[in-house]
Amino acid sequence: MTRQPTKDDRFSFGLWTVGWPGGDPFGTPTRTVLDPWEYSDKLAELGAWGITFHDNDVFPFDASAEERKRITGRLKDATDQAGLVIEMVTTNTFTHPVFKDGGLTSNDRSVRRFGLAKIIQAVDLAAEMGASTFVMWGGREGAEYDSSKDLHAALARYKEGLDTVAGYIKSQGYGLRIGLEPKPNEPRGDIFLPTLGHALALIADLEHGDIVGLNPEVGHEQMANLNYTHGLAQALFSGKLFHIDLNGQSGLKYDQDLVFGHGNLLSAFFTVDLVENGFPASPDAPRYEGPKHFDYKPSRTEYTEGVWESAKANMSTYLMLAEKAKAFRADPQVKEAMEYSGVYDLATPTLAEGETVADLVAATADFDADEVAKRDYGFVRLHQLALEHLIG
Amino acid sequence: MTRQPTKDDRFSFGLWTVGWPGGDPFGTPTRTVLDPWEYSDKLAELGAWGITFHDNDVFPFDASAEERKRITGRLKDATDQAGLVIEMVTTNTFTHPVFKDGGLTSNDRSVRRFGLAKIIQAVDLAAEMGASTFVMWGGREGAEYDSSKDLHAALARYKEGLDTVAGYIKSQGYGLRIGLEPKPNEPRGDIFLPTLGHALALIADLEHGDIVGLNPEVGHEQMANLNYTHGLAQALFSGKLFHIDLNGQSGLKYDQDLVFGHGNLLSAFFTVDLVENGFPASPDAPRYEGPKHFDYKPSRTEYTEGVWESAKANMSTYLMLAEKAKAFRADPQVKEAMEYSGVYDLATPTLAEGETVADLVAATADFDADEVAKRDYGFVRLHQLALEHLIG
Amino acid sequence: MTRQPTKDDRFSFGLWTVGWPGGDPFGTPTRTVLDPWEYSDKLAELGAWGITFHDNDVFPFDASAEERKRITGRLKDATDQAGLVIEMVTTNTFTHPVFKDGGLTSNDRSVRRFGLAKIIQAVDLAAEMGASTFVMWGGREGAEYDSSKDLHAALARYKEGLDTVAGYIKSQGYGLRIGLEPKPNEPRGDIFLPTLGHALALIADLEHGDIVGLNPEVGHEQMANLNYTHGLAQALFSGKLFHIDLNGQSGLKYDQDLVFGHGNLLSAFFTVDLVENGFPASPDAPRYEGPKHFDYKPSRTEYTEGVWESAKANMSTYLMLAEKAKAFRADPQVKEAMEYSGVYDLATPTLAEGETVADLVAATADFDADEVAKRDYGFVRLHQLALEHLIG
Amino acid sequence: MTRQPTKDDRFSFGLWTVGWPGGDPFGTPTRTVLDPWEYSDKLAELGAWGITFHDNDVFPFDASAEERKRITGRLKDATDQAGLVIEMVTTNTFTHPVFKDGGLTSNDRSVRRFGLAKIIQAVDLAAEMGASTFVMWGGREGAEYDSSKDLHAALARYKEGLDTVAGYIKSQGYGLRIGLEPKPNEPRGDIFLPTLGHALALIADLEHGDIVGLNPEVGHEQMANLNYTHGLAQALFSGKLFHIDLNGQSGLKYDQDLVFGHGNLLSAFFTVDLVENGFPASPDAPRYEGPKHFDYKPSRTEYTEGVWESAKANMSTYLMLAEKAKAFRADPQVKEAMEYSGVYDLATPTLAEGETVADLVAATADFDADEVAKRDYGFVRLHQLALEHLIG
Repeated sequence: MTRQPTKDDRFSFGLWTVGWPGGDPFGTPTRTVLDPWEYSDKLAELGAWGITFHDNDVFPFDASAEERKRITGRLKDATDQAGLVIEMVTTNTFTHPVFKDGGLTSNDRSVRRFGLAKIIQAVDLAAEMGASTFVMWGGREGAEYDSSKDLHAALARYKEGLDTVAGYIKSQGYGLRIGLEPKPNEPRGDIFLPTLGHALALIADLEHGDIVGLNPEVGHEQMANLNYTHGLAQALFSGKLFHIDLNGQSGLKYDQDLVFGHGNLLSAFFTVDLVENGFPASPDAPRYEGPKHFDYKPSRTEYTEGVWESAKANMSTYLMLAEKAKAFRADPQVKEAMEYSGVYDLATPTLAEGETVADLVAATADFDADEVAKRDYGFVRLHQLALEHLIG
Repeated sequence: MTRQPTKDDRFSFGLWTVGWPGGDPFGTPTRTVLDPWEYSDKLAELGAWGITFHDNDVFPFDASAEERKRITGRLKDATDQAGLVIEMVTTNTFTHPVFKDGGLTSNDRSVRRFGLAKIIQAVDLAAEMGASTFVMWGGREGAEYDSSKDLHAALARYKEGLDTVAGYIKSQGYGLRIGLEPKPNEPRGDIFLPTLGHALALIADLEHGDIVGLNPEVGHEQMANLNYTHGLAQALFSGKLFHIDLNGQSGLKYDQDLVFGHGNLLSAFFTVDLVENGFPASPDAPRYEGPKHFDYKPSRTEYTEGVWESAKANMSTYLMLAEKAKAFRADPQVKEAMEYSGVYDLATPTLAEGETVADLVAATADFDADEVAKRDYGFVRLHQLALEHLIG
Repeated sequence: MTRQPTKDDRFSFGLWTVGWPGGDPFGTPTRTVLDPWEYSDKLAELGAWGITFHDNDVFPFDASAEERKRITGRLKDATDQAGLVIEMVTTNTFTHPVFKDGGLTSNDRSVRRFGLAKIIQAVDLAAEMGASTFVMWGGREGAEYDSSKDLHAALARYKEGLDTVAGYIKSQGYGLRIGLEPKPNEPRGDIFLPTLGHALALIADLEHGDIVGLNPEVGHEQMANLNYTHGLAQALFSGKLFHIDLNGQSGLKYDQDLVFGHGNLLSAFFTVDLVENGFPASPDAPRYEGPKHFDYKPSRTEYTEGVWESAKANMSTYLMLAEKAKAFRADPQVKEAMEYSGVYDLATPTLAEGETVADLVAATADFDADEVAKRDYGFVRLHQLALEHLIG
Repeated sequence: MTRQPTKDDRFSFGLWTVGWPGGDPFGTPTRTVLDPWEYSDKLAELGAWGITFHDNDVFPFDASAEERKRITGRLKDATDQAGLVIEMVTTNTFTHPVFKDGGLTSNDRSVRRFGLAKIIQAVDLAAEMGASTFVMWGGREGAEYDSSKDLHAALARYKEGLDTVAGYIKSQGYGLRIGLEPKPNEPRGDIFLPTLGHALALIADLEHGDIVGLNPEVGHEQMANLNYTHGLAQALFSGKLFHIDLNGQSGLKYDQDLVFGHGNLLSAFFTVDLVENGFPASPDAPRYEGPKHFDYKPSRTEYTEGVWESAKANMSTYLMLAEKAKAFRADPQVKEAMEYSGVYDLATPTLAEGETVADLVAATADFDADEVAKRDYGFVRLHQLALEHLIG
């Protein structure tokens, strides 16, 4: 057992997580839904620090301005009273049938216009709620058939939409940053910006890219058969890790949204190690400084008790892994093993200060490749040390 | 049957493709290897336009300067006589055991220095051979264990290496562009720059990124569970599609390097459609203008006859698909179906000229989402038309 | 374009296919649903021969006996009038929340009992409707967590359930055979009997296994990263290919249920080739003799027109592939290539009539492995011939 | 840290594991190979109980009878002196080019005859070495192209081969059982008997199937996107779990053969839990009683030290997991949670003793599905308890 989470841990939950009623493609909901303001007290009691939501987690798609105001006001009050922050707000451009071909990249311009306007209004809401991050998950931006889209135009519209939203944020002086959430597929056959790499690439092409970064989700990167921790590292390298979505996924299948750590446990350990301890040989490299946000779904087999057990499990697992990761890094045997493996060496530039390419070629002319090839990197032993810290 | 390929088709083959002897992780070679200058005549006869090679496809890893000169000279002569161009040269930093932990990102600085020097020397060779593209496949840049690398340092070293090579190309006035070739795994458990998105993202961070672009391979993107044609579109959108590697892959498994079209045929059709016809609604968008380069392996079950049959099959399949794609785009019924599906609409900006965000929000206030949601996009019919052109 | 389908083609559709309203895990339905008896005329007009359904595609979960009778009677009348057969009936033990942990293998015995009783009643219905096949898809029989099931008990309960149902069918003298439909995951993290191989293995352990066979679905086997045509062959080898579910899937992701051929087209070609033409060298091997049943979903982007276009596309694609497959097999060049590749040779037993193991060892003592290894199998050329028939 | 392994743990290693020199499809070997008799002392010292090998791990493919005798004799002596058993012997029908289209299912009958004879001779060797299991991994039995095989004939030849070998074992009175090792792909595009389910299905069709069972490998089942522990359970259910191959795999990619536990750690925990503790509610169910055999590869980055570190890591990880699994099962809180989750309930037959189907239908007529649907299964809490035992 591990310690109770506290607000200093900065754990946050989407309202759509503990509030997921359990409907799936082959089954109807197994749980009832509370009103949006009914989650805060319980989450605060469990040790959470913040909540997040989509506009339509809170008010209906067709709510009047007055209704939105009333409902969001009541939610804000409940959240304040529970001592929670609303750290992130996002918009839902995927549930209503009108978005069946996308919000920003629908082949129907009237839908694109409506989608963009809906996002803008959610930005206002995010600012009003005091959020610092505005996530954009373009789950419907995609296609099942390669013929159904002009792919260049789709990216142009995506860029137009992102720049419009980011430009608007700046124009209003909102203290918000955008976090793009990539996903390779589901609900579309192929989603645009399928991995965090693709999203980083588009951000680099934006006019207002300085306030646009990433919100990578564990399961989404794993659905592209990729290493989540490697992805976080590249996002940090580009200075774009604005927010994270922690959960669990068991391999190449539908989006499972399991509890964090309930899928690939070793990968979760190294993710926490990176978030808590940073890079071992790059003390000046960017660190992740945002909340630990859980974007998971309590399994459909669980009823009320199971919902809260699963919420606790996310935080408890994170804390257990954090404790193990601290001990791992502090262990002198691990430091020695990292030295042996050359982990620290990699931070040394390949070229010496002022060295030219010609110098380099000359200096390596007599390199004895066969001899150096005999180096034992000790990676297996180092990994086993991690595993011993994790389960030993 | 389709027409014979000609030089105008600009088909090129790696020497390591028709020259692959057929060894795999569980079996020894099934074919003998010719000398590097013995492939040109046959490839020219089959209709190829160019060849490509790794340094060590041609001369041994430990060849003396004199030996390199003699061998590459003889290859160049044979290629010239056959009327073929050497359109691309690349370097092998993966076969020799010294590169077992990478070339540019090995945890051993002496290896990184040797690797970088080897690449520089291959750049000189590429320039000497008259190549226009220098491909860099960092197949050994990666890890099996998350503990074994400082991931920030790894990306910093990768960037240092790429900028050094690109800077050197510029300093020498070589007319070369670099094409990065992403791959998610194999031979490493997780390779850095696993998809073309990740590579685009790193390129955006380079100092000399203007001459660095991509060489995406069909099978590599598919090994990341991604849509290759979507990937090409994003590379074009970023102005970075410098070179392509065509081949076939049947799903999530080892790197198969099948003949182009022998894996996912529908995807191959849409790839050729994009390369030959461009984007349907974006006439001014960038087009791919490089060679059609095949990076495949004749199956290990084939002997000499099968090698050449497989080489022919790549070109023949491409030409058949190109013919079908031309007819598909020219078909008035297809044009009508694309119109119906809104494919052309997507090229229209979402905001009107000069329209503000406030204008947009006001203009969409009365949008009837339920009504617009009833639109029939006709994507299945459009796809079926493509399929009918393909096989009808 | 290809010819119109006729009843002789024996194409059938699940009511849940054209009747799917388009709800998915991230979106609400995009289409309205007709009454179950409203699909027959249109399907008959398009050329279908039969329909199939789950009990609760037709009447509500909690319908009274009278209501069931009224509704199924009306459906039967409409189907008869349209000249369609009801070739298969199945039961839904996955949609209602009570089945959230399974029907036959729920950890709650009261649920197992209710699930089994529901299946039994659906068997009566199937007999009454004149169906010849009773499909059992145990989509909820599974787990997300390895701790949540006694896996031996789960298989014992599955066996108990199957034997009870099969025994009941026999005891009633119904002319029904059971077709198990394997699937690796979705909606459960891991479904029991994940592939057709696992289902065949359990059938071999049944008491009443003689009337239990398979209903393999294209996409389901492909979600286990497997070759569907290879799977059909093994089902035929075991004499257990009772029914098939044709559709399309694009790789390792959520269950897409695309139109047949709209996923892996080459694989669809060889599936049709096997169904239409049988094994090339085994004329006496079992053949598939059931209906060509489509279990697909019209994409959520389509409205009414698109639903019917997609229904047509399934049949049209099948017919186009069948025509190509006939021509492929009839082509003398293909026969010669198959001979060259040894395809016919494989039907010859390895041991000669009466040959003993000792004889064999003696007879092969001087085998020249290095020489025989040089054989060119010509598989690439043969595959290219198939591809040329398909798209040439 | 955990205790040292002892012979009572019955850990065994393939000679090809610690003896793997590190060649892969993109790189030459990084280590030198010892003589086969040089591994025993070290393995014994580390705590292993047994070794296993392929014929050609020990003597060359073309060794004379005398040479085989000399070499295998020397190996047996070394093994005996080290106090190790040779628990399993297998044959290599995949490395030599002659087997490029398979051993038992090659399209060339002369190859099939040679392959079968080679297997028979390896059976004699296995008996002579005192092995109890003869593993058959048909890694080359498969195809890349659906046209290249008569799939029915391929299964018929596979069956002929297996029955011949099993019949021979019986005829000689050898105390050997055959363990089939399924794999979905690599080195072939699609391997026959791709999962343990498919292998069980073929075994059920054999004449001499009583001595034919399975040797499932962790990574192989995971390469088919399947749950290894679920697979072991079905093998036990069919009474066919004769041997196991423990290793690690990180998702859908090439066959990694990592150290056991270095891939999917949670899955490894539940595998050990099943092997050590059996099924929680089925005390009379079959248990696995064979050796814990490691079929892994020391990563190519490791030199001599790393090879032995990795060998130790396999055993150490197993022992750590076994200790955790014992504590997990013994924990009263876990027992209570299993009760709560209905884990024990699943062992109760669905029908009461003597209950008829009619009784069942009548007894469930008033079942309140909506009410029972509210059950909280507690699966997440139970899984979290497992995780706490594992890492807490």
